[in-house]
Amino acid sequence: MHDIHLSLEQLRRYFSRDAFAEFCGVEIEEVGPGRARVSLKVEPRHLNGLGMVHGGVLFTLADMALAAAAHSRGRSAVAVTASMSFMKAGMTDVIHAEAREVSRNRRLATYTVQVTDGSGEALCLCQGTAYIRAETLQESPG
Amino acid sequence: MHDIHLSLEQLRRYFSRDAFAEFCGVEIEEVGPGRARVSLKVEPRHLNGLGMVHGGVLFTLADMALAAAAHSRGRSAVAVTASMSFMKAGMTDVIHAEAREVSRNRRLATYTVQVTDGSGEALCLCQGTAYIRAETLQESPG
Amino acid sequence: MHDIHLSLEQLRRYFSRDAFAEFCGVEIEEVGPGRARVSLKVEPRHLNGLGMVHGGVLFTLADMALAAAAHSRGRSAVAVTASMSFMKAGMTDVIHAEAREVSRNRRLATYTVQVTDGSGEALCLCQGTAYIRAETLQESPG
Amino acid sequence: MHDIHLSLEQLRRYFSRDAFAEFCGVEIEEVGPGRARVSLKVEPRHLNGLGMVHGGVLFTLADMALAAAAHSRGRSAVAVTASMSFMKAGMTDVIHAEAREVSRNRRLATYTVQVTDGSGEALCLCQGTAYIRAETLQESPG
Repeated sequence: MHDIHLSLEQLRRYFSRDAFAEFCGVEIEEVGPGRARVSLKVEPRHLNGLGMVHGGVLFTLADMALAAAAHSRGRSAVAVTASMSFMKAGMTDVIHAEAREVSRNRRLATYTVQVTDGSGEALCLCQGTAYIRAETLQESPG
Repeated sequence: MHDIHLSLEQLRRYFSRDAFAEFCGVEIEEVGPGRARVSLKVEPRHLNGLGMVHGGVLFTLADMALAAAAHSRGRSAVAVTASMSFMKAGMTDVIHAEAREVSRNRRLATYTVQVTDGSGEALCLCQGTAYIRAETLQESPG
Repeated sequence: MHDIHLSLEQLRRYFSRDAFAEFCGVEIEEVGPGRARVSLKVEPRHLNGLGMVHGGVLFTLADMALAAAAHSRGRSAVAVTASMSFMKAGMTDVIHAEAREVSRNRRLATYTVQVTDGSGEALCLCQGTAYIRAETLQESPG
Repeated sequence: MHDIHLSLEQLRRYFSRDAFAEFCGVEIEEVGPGRARVSLKVEPRHLNGLGMVHGGVLFTLADMALAAAAHSRGRSAVAVTASMSFMKAGMTDVIHAEAREVSRNRRLATYTVQVTDGSGEALCLCQGTAYIRAETLQESPG
């Protein structure tokens, strides 16, 4: 059976129900088969006590990129592991995360995600695994 | 040179400058040498599109527990890696994260963090490493 | 359907076909539902260029403990992720690894493994996920 | 102060003292600033009970690639974390691991390592962190 490839529009509609992503201000920018790019405009609420983008924000961005990439083939999926390496403090206006599928079989898929700042420098790296559910995506009726 | 052990009051004052932790609603509950416990009251803004606590919230809670435990000895520290295993969907009113130091040398410390729901069931597990900086903590003047 | 709990004898027979574990000298010491303990007598061939137990040996020991714990319930399983934190150089005669199941559902199970030296000090920590296959274990005919 | 870049010859001589790498049959093939490629000819002793290359062998190969890349700049380094994702069973005659430095500062460096089989298919992926020691490499007198 073939997977369906969701359009950016379909994926945005699906993730529009994600309250925390919206609360954080994550935007889905691009999607393709097994890959996705998301971004976030850094606001004061995203910072930690040292004035750097909070690790929780970097993770949330990486996680959303992974989730968008994992859903890009039209099946529901859920992250089961994610290993983060934090490399550089984020201090710019915008940050991006780009997820790329490295392998996918019937039940499990592996992704690498790179989070970069506005100048393209890597802030953190994530290696994650998603479990692919039996269901295809139910699009939001709205 | 001896490390200082920070009190719960001192640690709370230090992390009061953490805007994202406050934005998410993370509370530091307990702290001791090399360990800390934090909690979060689940609100609709913490959920993903499936009505479960968002992975980014679970990570942020785990990260704050690790950070509080890593700072408990009076030195500034920063998480350099964190490996998350997501095991169960969080659907309760309150979630907790408890961090425990497994080892610490002059520059690196290793922690395990367990995130549990209100009934004590494990939602996710985190294994993380912090880099310990030369500076001791500067308490917030406020 | 109930899982079967394998005895130490059955598990040893099953893993007797593991050539690399035998080549390295890994012994299964104990097994129970969701847990296992393995050990290795350190020989010169296990060392790296600095005279410490090689990271590959520590991983192999942790991996075998995880595999034994994952198989303890009578189903075939395969490690899909494993995050290692190396904390202390191993320089003793014997090293142990103890795996403990933190959660298990129909398809995925999560383990923590602690590798310790002869004096009980932690050398490294592993957090891993196993994928549980449909088949029950085929015992080796031999 | 400038780092020195070691030649393949120098790096091979340095790692010739690594007994476990030799015992496993790991060969260093290429090295450059922040990157390295190693390989291993699969023998029956490298297999697990299912006839696939053992996870411990895949890790050892990834770890050696990371170590070679981390030492390529002439400073001693030690892996502190390594997150493995196992994606495909290895069943070919030869396997390779290629490590690439994603970031490096004074004390910590982050690497991704891809392990591939003879036909170039990815078997596993590793994301690791090395701690860089103060000492430069002491070449083996031999």
